Amino acid sequence: MANDNLGLGSFADDARARLEQALHRYLPEPAACDAPRLAEAMRYAALAGGKRIRPLLVYAACQLSGGTPEQADAPATAVELIHAYSLVHDDLPAMDDDDLRRGQPTCHRAFDEATAILAGDTLLTLAFELLGDAGDYPAATRVGMVRTLAGAAGAAGMAAGQMQDMEAEGRLQQVSALERMHYLKTGRLITASLHLGYLAANRPDPALEQALLAFGDAIGLAFQIQDDILDVTVDTAQLGKPSGSDEKQGKSTFPALIGLEASRERAQTLCQQARGHLQGHGEAARPLLDLADYIVRRGH
Amino acid sequence: MANDNLGLGSFADDARARLEQALHRYLPEPAACDAPRLAEAMRYAALAGGKRIRPLLVYAACQLSGGTPEQADAPATAVELIHAYSLVHDDLPAMDDDDLRRGQPTCHRAFDEATAILAGDTLLTLAFELLGDAGDYPAATRVGMVRTLAGAAGAAGMAAGQMQDMEAEGRLQQVSALERMHYLKTGRLITASLHLGYLAANRPDPALEQALLAFGDAIGLAFQIQDDILDVTVDTAQLGKPSGSDEKQGKSTFPALIGLEASRERAQTLCQQARGHLQGHGEAARPLLDLADYIVRRGH
Repeated sequence: MANDNLGLGSFADDARARLEQALHRYLPEPAACDAPRLAEAMRYAALAGGKRIRPLLVYAACQLSGGTPEQADAPATAVELIHAYSLVHDDLPAMDDDDLRRGQPTCHRAFDEATAILAGDTLLTLAFELLGDAGDYPAATRVGMVRTLAGAAGAAGMAAGQMQDMEAEGRLQQVSALERMHYLKTGRLITASLHLGYLAANRPDPALEQALLAFGDAIGLAFQIQDDILDVTVDTAQLGKPSGSDEKQGKSTFPALIGLEASRERAQTLCQQARGHLQGHGEAARPLLDLADYIVRRGH
Repeated sequence: MANDNLGLGSFADDARARLEQALHRYLPEPAACDAPRLAEAMRYAALAGGKRIRPLLVYAACQLSGGTPEQADAPATAVELIHAYSLVHDDLPAMDDDDLRRGQPTCHRAFDEATAILAGDTLLTLAFELLGDAGDYPAATRVGMVRTLAGAAGAAGMAAGQMQDMEAEGRLQQVSALERMHYLKTGRLITASLHLGYLAANRPDPALEQALLAFGDAIGLAFQIQDDILDVTVDTAQLGKPSGSDEKQGKSTFPALIGLEASRERAQTLCQQARGHLQGHGEAARPLLDLADYIVRRGH
């Protein structure tokens, strides 16, 4: 099982509890859905736990931007639905062909491939429905959130990164290409999470907006480097997936390209840079600073 | 090859030309995309022709609602992207396992399964990005369009219909269940097309809005009955897919359940009902009335 208790204190506990409630509220109820099995697969994929890092970033950025936890609910749920959809589709036999996710059967294993494809499609669609419909936001805020999430998830973002990742299998990549791939595949959605939290608060502050985006870009890359480090250093029981699975698939990793120690240093440096972007915001920035620390600390 | 010349006059010719331009403009350019092959697959799937019925409904409803062709461009493109994504995913081996679409290799045949899954995902995402970003609309109009399209495409609409369709294979359905399945799988997106055109025009007229929705529900069902009729009466060359393919997959059809003649009468009656909803709108309703006629006439 992945470590779901992040040790991030009451802010994270409260935010995670809100997110679970929001997911339960917004995901379709099988009994009330025209396709109960589809609704079950959506719930299976989205309610299976996980660290909920992206929603936590939404809640923390929203708070730092002067917003309420309530204002973060819809975008936090939307970004987690996008993340959940991407995992369901990435796990498919035609993609990464994974049987386990967080120690449980992947969606296509627990259901079937066709249902998993559709569940991914509907999680993705629901994310945008929530941004258009859920909660109480000015229309301009909703539009900004739709643009941010769609831009980060689509062919100029996460999906392009997944495509690059597949195409890179078995080839040794340059570090710059690896960074670009991770920026697209993981970084853009992490930065979008911070941007969504900022937008949801609806208190324009361009300097803070830029600081949050820069913070996001730094922790996004740190997150992925740490993922690569964990992949070569942690055993299956802790990680919830086979250790060294990237290596076995012939994927380039930071430890393979620049070494384990240099990878650790890089992640630490990025974490420090991220913290620097939020200097001067005092206690209000605490949850984001803790999240940055957690990202390079997790799994150790 | 499917019959792409609908004989619907200059309105349809102009609208289709606008749509092609908009698709070319908004689909990512392979050379400018981080994942060129993904962009190619998106273009392959979305630019492969087809009747473009849904975009035509957007343009026609927008015109009847007092809007300009320009105002219909973004939602017409968005609804066609949703349609294209659904075809790419429905054709996958795990779903309907089709090799041909409009006489050409399906996306996963022309590329590969993983690319087709991602291309469907990104076409879906791009649809919402356009509603959030493309053209010039008040924010409230964009939000209304996002809600309409997401509601029609997701787990309470098209995707639920596809799920029901798969689950019904090999089982004889009641006519009422078949109608519900088609309403979800096809009807909701057709009615959404009319609603999108109405919303894009941004001239509130609740009576016209209701008339357009009722018109959409009637032609949506007529469209699917006609599809079933064509499936048993037209040969492969005309249809672009093997004749009787639904029958071979053990799917219930209107001709199988109520007979060919009763199916034809039902489609005609629905067409008349649809026309009735737009009575009194004179020449401005002409393109929609022609489209209703076309839907029960096509392929004969």
